[in-house]
Amino acid sequence: MRFFSDNAAPCHPAVLDALASANRLDTAYDGDQWSARLDGAFSDLFETNVEAIWVTTGTAANSIALAMLCPPEGAILCHRDAHIENDEAGAPAFYNGGAKLTLLDGPGAKVTPNAVKSAFDRVRPDVHQVQPAALSITNATEYGLVYSPAETAALGEMCKSLGLDFHIDGARFANAAASTGASPADLTWRAGADALSFGFVKNGGMNAEAIVFFAPGHADRARRLKKRSGHLMSKGRYAAAQILALLEEDRWLGNARAANAAASALAEACGPERLVHAVEANELFVRMSPEEAAALRAQGFDFYDWAPGEIRLVTSWDQDMAAVGRLAAAIRAL
Amino acid sequence: MRFFSDNAAPCHPAVLDALASANRLDTAYDGDQWSARLDGAFSDLFETNVEAIWVTTGTAANSIALAMLCPPEGAILCHRDAHIENDEAGAPAFYNGGAKLTLLDGPGAKVTPNAVKSAFDRVRPDVHQVQPAALSITNATEYGLVYSPAETAALGEMCKSLGLDFHIDGARFANAAASTGASPADLTWRAGADALSFGFVKNGGMNAEAIVFFAPGHADRARRLKKRSGHLMSKGRYAAAQILALLEEDRWLGNARAANAAASALAEACGPERLVHAVEANELFVRMSPEEAAALRAQGFDFYDWAPGEIRLVTSWDQDMAAVGRLAAAIRAL
Amino acid sequence: MRFFSDNAAPCHPAVLDALASANRLDTAYDGDQWSARLDGAFSDLFETNVEAIWVTTGTAANSIALAMLCPPEGAILCHRDAHIENDEAGAPAFYNGGAKLTLLDGPGAKVTPNAVKSAFDRVRPDVHQVQPAALSITNATEYGLVYSPAETAALGEMCKSLGLDFHIDGARFANAAASTGASPADLTWRAGADALSFGFVKNGGMNAEAIVFFAPGHADRARRLKKRSGHLMSKGRYAAAQILALLEEDRWLGNARAANAAASALAEACGPERLVHAVEANELFVRMSPEEAAALRAQGFDFYDWAPGEIRLVTSWDQDMAAVGRLAAAIRAL
Amino acid sequence: MRFFSDNAAPCHPAVLDALASANRLDTAYDGDQWSARLDGAFSDLFETNVEAIWVTTGTAANSIALAMLCPPEGAILCHRDAHIENDEAGAPAFYNGGAKLTLLDGPGAKVTPNAVKSAFDRVRPDVHQVQPAALSITNATEYGLVYSPAETAALGEMCKSLGLDFHIDGARFANAAASTGASPADLTWRAGADALSFGFVKNGGMNAEAIVFFAPGHADRARRLKKRSGHLMSKGRYAAAQILALLEEDRWLGNARAANAAASALAEACGPERLVHAVEANELFVRMSPEEAAALRAQGFDFYDWAPGEIRLVTSWDQDMAAVGRLAAAIRAL
Repeated sequence: MRFFSDNAAPCHPAVLDALASANRLDTAYDGDQWSARLDGAFSDLFETNVEAIWVTTGTAANSIALAMLCPPEGAILCHRDAHIENDEAGAPAFYNGGAKLTLLDGPGAKVTPNAVKSAFDRVRPDVHQVQPAALSITNATEYGLVYSPAETAALGEMCKSLGLDFHIDGARFANAAASTGASPADLTWRAGADALSFGFVKNGGMNAEAIVFFAPGHADRARRLKKRSGHLMSKGRYAAAQILALLEEDRWLGNARAANAAASALAEACGPERLVHAVEANELFVRMSPEEAAALRAQGFDFYDWAPGEIRLVTSWDQDMAAVGRLAAAIRAL
Repeated sequence: MRFFSDNAAPCHPAVLDALASANRLDTAYDGDQWSARLDGAFSDLFETNVEAIWVTTGTAANSIALAMLCPPEGAILCHRDAHIENDEAGAPAFYNGGAKLTLLDGPGAKVTPNAVKSAFDRVRPDVHQVQPAALSITNATEYGLVYSPAETAALGEMCKSLGLDFHIDGARFANAAASTGASPADLTWRAGADALSFGFVKNGGMNAEAIVFFAPGHADRARRLKKRSGHLMSKGRYAAAQILALLEEDRWLGNARAANAAASALAEACGPERLVHAVEANELFVRMSPEEAAALRAQGFDFYDWAPGEIRLVTSWDQDMAAVGRLAAAIRAL
Repeated sequence: MRFFSDNAAPCHPAVLDALASANRLDTAYDGDQWSARLDGAFSDLFETNVEAIWVTTGTAANSIALAMLCPPEGAILCHRDAHIENDEAGAPAFYNGGAKLTLLDGPGAKVTPNAVKSAFDRVRPDVHQVQPAALSITNATEYGLVYSPAETAALGEMCKSLGLDFHIDGARFANAAASTGASPADLTWRAGADALSFGFVKNGGMNAEAIVFFAPGHADRARRLKKRSGHLMSKGRYAAAQILALLEEDRWLGNARAANAAASALAEACGPERLVHAVEANELFVRMSPEEAAALRAQGFDFYDWAPGEIRLVTSWDQDMAAVGRLAAAIRAL
Repeated sequence: MRFFSDNAAPCHPAVLDALASANRLDTAYDGDQWSARLDGAFSDLFETNVEAIWVTTGTAANSIALAMLCPPEGAILCHRDAHIENDEAGAPAFYNGGAKLTLLDGPGAKVTPNAVKSAFDRVRPDVHQVQPAALSITNATEYGLVYSPAETAALGEMCKSLGLDFHIDGARFANAAASTGASPADLTWRAGADALSFGFVKNGGMNAEAIVFFAPGHADRARRLKKRSGHLMSKGRYAAAQILALLEEDRWLGNARAANAAASALAEACGPERLVHAVEANELFVRMSPEEAAALRAQGFDFYDWAPGEIRLVTSWDQDMAAVGRLAAAIRAL
């Protein structure tokens, strides 16, 4: 009964079925029938014409998106706890030729318009200082909080007023959509976003993530950078087919709802005093003594220690609700 | 009956089976049981301790390998028709911070020790010129020729005498091994190679290629660059499992033998006068008038025009030998 | 009596005088009174509004200019013997994040519109190949040939028709202007050039070169790259003052005329059979046996061997015409 | 009576004399007689064999030094107020291919061993996080504080224990040496430093700074990067001659002593309550109301506002002590 990471979960059966269906001769290098359908599928989902680029990892998705929105000499504003700052080995700088990440503070890894404004205003516009070019937020955040459409739109307006481009790292975008009940459009371009990294791997996919460009003019260069960084697969159809399988029948949303529901059940069991952050998606950060953690582990529950006196639980699209119930009961019994 | 590209072919059934077998919860980010077996599997195959890095594309494999062997201020010697020069969108320079490709000539995209020596000697050792740091060859070459162990060893010796590192782009390494009958060791480290890009996608894989380091000291930095470039998959087990499936039962070799055999049958049908290059692997470059090409297409055979009066045929691991026979007959009948 | 290089020559006395005049307290980082005059001085010279950036070396000038005209994923077309390819240690790729130099052929290091067209047409527009973005020529060329306004305009038109930006490496632009008698405007923007590296160091300067942008929109980013690459001097006034001193009283032109005249005198002494290239600026490439070269050296003349049976003579702004006369006589006497 | 910046000051007369002396024909590209003496001159000064690289700006010196000490995938620890973080337009990342600056806190822009240890320990050694590779401190700091030999050695020991290389940004190294009375050796390699950016421009030079490598094995690659970044001047002798002129007769030290003495006199006049930081070199950060500042300006004193209620005064090698006395009196009279 493992609550380590949504990356540890298997793929949704529809993904494997899609791979089997795509397992026939077709044109190489994204020239196939599945790849041809992706722009349309995402345009339908987002209720506007978008262009999509697909790669195998969220790090690549974020980096390629940000390389379009920030020049080598610019800075990307992001939260101090953002994945792009802490867990991508410097990929954004590698991809765009050395751009700087300027770090913002805020509880739960959430960014506010004021934090953006304040960081922006600290930079002199002269040539000695790196000029902010873009904002990147993560929705759901690294601590499982969710930006509502209104919160996102307030950031989008601040970006517009400061001349910043606006990127959303949506490694868990599905969980944010499931949590808010908002439409993908309201969470992105209607709120001013220029690009979204739309994650599928944490949500039942195997190895395919998408960059969705709402702002025009980026997709052509992004496709070149995708190739130049070794992310154009010769058999791209297997990635496209995965994504289509998860978009069909709103599986992406159903999977996220399931993961969120499991997290909610655990959150209720924890109670507000144990919770370091509100549980709005599929992650829980739980205050717990080493003895309590050991007691849970002795009952067969696996998870990561996060900080002294704090554990992390992550639920997945395929979480066994019986196991969730047992863990909830075990936490209540502590 | 398509003879377009080995990238257009489907995956071997064992690959899909391996994906299904790996479709359960395991540790993320290459921490799983399949990933743990790869160094051993490649060490067995190469009869020496090697370290392997796996990525989704040959471009990534070549670029990461070359970034280890050539510093930003150095030059990589390669053939003018090398894939890294012509078909990777400048990825080697992107990956290693701007290294130069110094181009060599030679029939069939093959490089000779003399060509290496001559290019090396043209460079003054002063700070004004970019100093050669590595040689990269492709085996089998972009025109389907194969380096024997002796030819490779002669290049390896030249590299050693000039202080160059030695990389082999083995997008079709399996075809070269099948063609020569030589052991993987004899075609690589025993011949002085420091690193090999070992291709699986053109040979029945889905989206997994390996970099095999024979020279010590590169794998740790390469793993960091793999992450930094967005090639560390959160569910790496699906890539590792593919590669293992193709290494098991020597499927990689069997697949290549099948593709090579299909090419040989077609080569015999073409006869030496039609063949622009000797057919030693799974590619044929065939002199053919537009009318002849049209006649073949009218019979249901598909392939690319390569140059005026020249077509390219590529055979795959799954080539239907009946279709090959029909094409052979059709060519003979021209 | 040395004919090694125009870089070996001293500075013009007016340059030292200008440094002394600037040797007082003023605002740092190009905020001084000399720097403020440069845009105007170059605009006057070029008969149009231009923006100028000044740096200490021709390599920096070329690289910053080209980084504005070619994106990281693009290619710069240039002659195989161009300084940016052979003598700048890969600086253009360092500066713009890995752009490729695509090499053109042509006698005397001169590029023709046909060579540009032919190289452009060889590139497939797909994402696998690096797309040409700019042309860079050198005027005067590395072999001392000069592009006329008409030749330059023909290249400018070809660039325009192909969508290429157009850069001129003018390390010896003054010599080209002196040789053709053409106006700076006719040799540059009226011929379609977007940017010029305007050399002063080989022509009596100490350590200041200029980038002149004719195309709008580049100077702001170029100023940031100038800083980012460590070329914004804290006491920039000493560079600006040098350039102003050489622009005043047309010293730049006078210096170049003097150097060209010395070269012409030597060319006449050599006669057409000895000359590998026409002598149109201040460089001579002269067929000469080792014995003949030794004989000249025995008489006190110093110069570089260039190739077997070939020497190079370079004349400078301060060339002693008596020494030139003696060398001319000595060559005639061989 | 200007107290803006030591960059605004003129050059020392010996520097202009040295330029005039060097104004004759010699070998280009640092092949001249002045350049040949620099390694020796610095080795004498530092009492050990060192290798020196000279460039025109402190930004270039810092960036080239750091590119030798930190790989593209690494991080440089530095103070949050360090010049490399705040005032070099991202140059360190540009030079080494995207390395990260990890920011440390501490009063007066000073770094402590504990701050280094604490930042180091926060980084997981896995591939997801950027690994610290080097520490860079500034001596004297951006706020005019000075590291003693013992403080520097404590940092050097911490670096050694953590496997970090150790760089000193010595834009005002002369002021630190003058302030501590310590030998250059005790302030650098005897304290564990691997490289020093040795500033001359703020201390009477025109446009020459040096990188001094104490650790072996860096100078050759640094010379290539110097060329590759456009910092190898074709007439390098004018930079070398400047540096030699400032090293001769310990002018570098005399100049710094003069600047420091002027600052001390002003510090005494300010009194401890006005001083934001101790005055240990040639910079003063002084609490002062807008009205007081206006009153000083009305008397002819010029300086920068630094923060609300705070001004900055910088003294130079050539500060007129009479003007200093008048400013001191005016401050006392406030």
